Amino acid sequence: MSDILFDRITLIGIGLIGSSIARDIKELGLAREVMISTRSAETLQRAQELELGTAYTVSAAEAVKDADLVIVSVPVGASGSVAEQIAPYLKPGAIVTDVGSTKASVIAQMAPYMPDNVHFIPGHPLAGTEKSGPDAGFTGLFRDRWCIFTPLPETDEVALGKLRGFWEKLGSRIDEMDPEHHDKVLAIVSHLPHIIAYNIVGTADDLGTVTESEVIKYSASGFRDFTRLAASDPTMWRDVCLHNKDAILEMLARFSEDLAYLQRAIRWGEGDKLFELFSRTRTIRRSIVQAGQDVDTPNFGRPTPDQKK
Amino acid sequence: MSDILFDRITLIGIGLIGSSIARDIKELGLAREVMISTRSAETLQRAQELELGTAYTVSAAEAVKDADLVIVSVPVGASGSVAEQIAPYLKPGAIVTDVGSTKASVIAQMAPYMPDNVHFIPGHPLAGTEKSGPDAGFTGLFRDRWCIFTPLPETDEVALGKLRGFWEKLGSRIDEMDPEHHDKVLAIVSHLPHIIAYNIVGTADDLGTVTESEVIKYSASGFRDFTRLAASDPTMWRDVCLHNKDAILEMLARFSEDLAYLQRAIRWGEGDKLFELFSRTRTIRRSIVQAGQDVDTPNFGRPTPDQKK
Repeated sequence: MSDILFDRITLIGIGLIGSSIARDIKELGLAREVMISTRSAETLQRAQELELGTAYTVSAAEAVKDADLVIVSVPVGASGSVAEQIAPYLKPGAIVTDVGSTKASVIAQMAPYMPDNVHFIPGHPLAGTEKSGPDAGFTGLFRDRWCIFTPLPETDEVALGKLRGFWEKLGSRIDEMDPEHHDKVLAIVSHLPHIIAYNIVGTADDLGTVTESEVIKYSASGFRDFTRLAASDPTMWRDVCLHNKDAILEMLARFSEDLAYLQRAIRWGEGDKLFELFSRTRTIRRSIVQAGQDVDTPNFGRPTPDQKK
Repeated sequence: MSDILFDRITLIGIGLIGSSIARDIKELGLAREVMISTRSAETLQRAQELELGTAYTVSAAEAVKDADLVIVSVPVGASGSVAEQIAPYLKPGAIVTDVGSTKASVIAQMAPYMPDNVHFIPGHPLAGTEKSGPDAGFTGLFRDRWCIFTPLPETDEVALGKLRGFWEKLGSRIDEMDPEHHDKVLAIVSHLPHIIAYNIVGTADDLGTVTESEVIKYSASGFRDFTRLAASDPTMWRDVCLHNKDAILEMLARFSEDLAYLQRAIRWGEGDKLFELFSRTRTIRRSIVQAGQDVDTPNFGRPTPDQKK
């Protein structure tokens, strides 16, 4: 039990991210007690069946009592409400962090409630899958993934070091940046791709000339790649759109501008422009594979029909 | 050798698709002779090193002599030129087919050259990966994948049956539709996804506020999914854009219209509209998985860091 970093960790929200953290804490023995809290009695019961913690309560206020580390893993739109509920009950010296995909909005929602004697350190582990809920979590989700902190100017270095140590135990690599930059970076690497994926799947769903069953039947020729992101949690992504509005609208404007250029090149038969873009994008794929951020296996290494049998 | 379907098969073009066909023919023993032809002497030599055929020539005209089945696997923009070169040398009764991703244009380019005593049957196997060239091919690429024929009205049923039998040996399921419908279906399930993927990767490449190294570093949060399609062969995709212009422009217009609606919902904070779309798209993913057209494993079953080690 020498790996214990905190006596009591409280997890508020126990979906894909919260439950993966819980599994890692348990497997690595990082806390004596793990208190789990979520608003839904049903989800809480499922967490208990999965033995994700040592204690369970639907009350966030109740949950944070005596906690040395509180990790809030809820849709970003619920951050303010959680902060308001837990603030009066936080232990002096406790570290409070979150895992939200937008940072400026989470800080604006949570910071005003945070007592002076508590260390509020906003964080964002860049990890996940298209699945959601407590059953979707697994140990090792954060291994070799980035976790970005966006600390406030007054942040205590010792507390920051302890939180960093926690995520490093989970296998993450840590980065720090200011919240506004985080929100711009995530708008392009994560939010725009999800929005575009949702959009194209919606477009395909609405066609009259091509039936939905044809779209499904022939989806392996490209379309299916987008349906993975478009199967992500609707509540989470609604909140991301509403809470990173400015950066997302900026990226959408750039995307649409570029698409208009491409569309015009298609209309006017400008093969050279198309070829130039289509060649340039290949290089980025290569860099991503070289950086170890994706596999080089064709088709993401999806099992071929052979292997399925 | 009882599986022989044709005495001599000629493959014109020996990239990902052509070389996968060659590998299957060889493994299954479907022809006595396999003549391989490609314009590039270098690629032809590589095909020979890989022992993909039984004879090799850079001359398409030379290649088709005495062939019972000719499969043209070149970028769709080159179809007309190939047809013109091979037409005078085709054996009476030969079957000529192709694998192009657009069908109306291929027919318009090739049909005028085809002699009356030859069976020209346009086809399109919906299979491939983001890789290209003779080394990228593999046996079994077409297994459990759809192959769409778009036969001309006068097509001989016996010849059609023979070609169908060939693709079925390769494991494909066969569909038939008219070329215009094919081009619309493919515009949404394949061409639009590729164009959107190329576009978003291009947008990310051009940002000033977020560096390219940040995009690469954090790409696992969604962006990397698009880079796979955007790494596809530039020549092939330039030609697809130029040769399925009308259907692609229609799908692009619908996509942009839907995106404007989504963008407006984000700007005005209309969470209900976002939630509705984000929930609806989940259903399509489920249907695709149920139809056996994609894996249900999170992240397409990409190896996790654990499995990589």
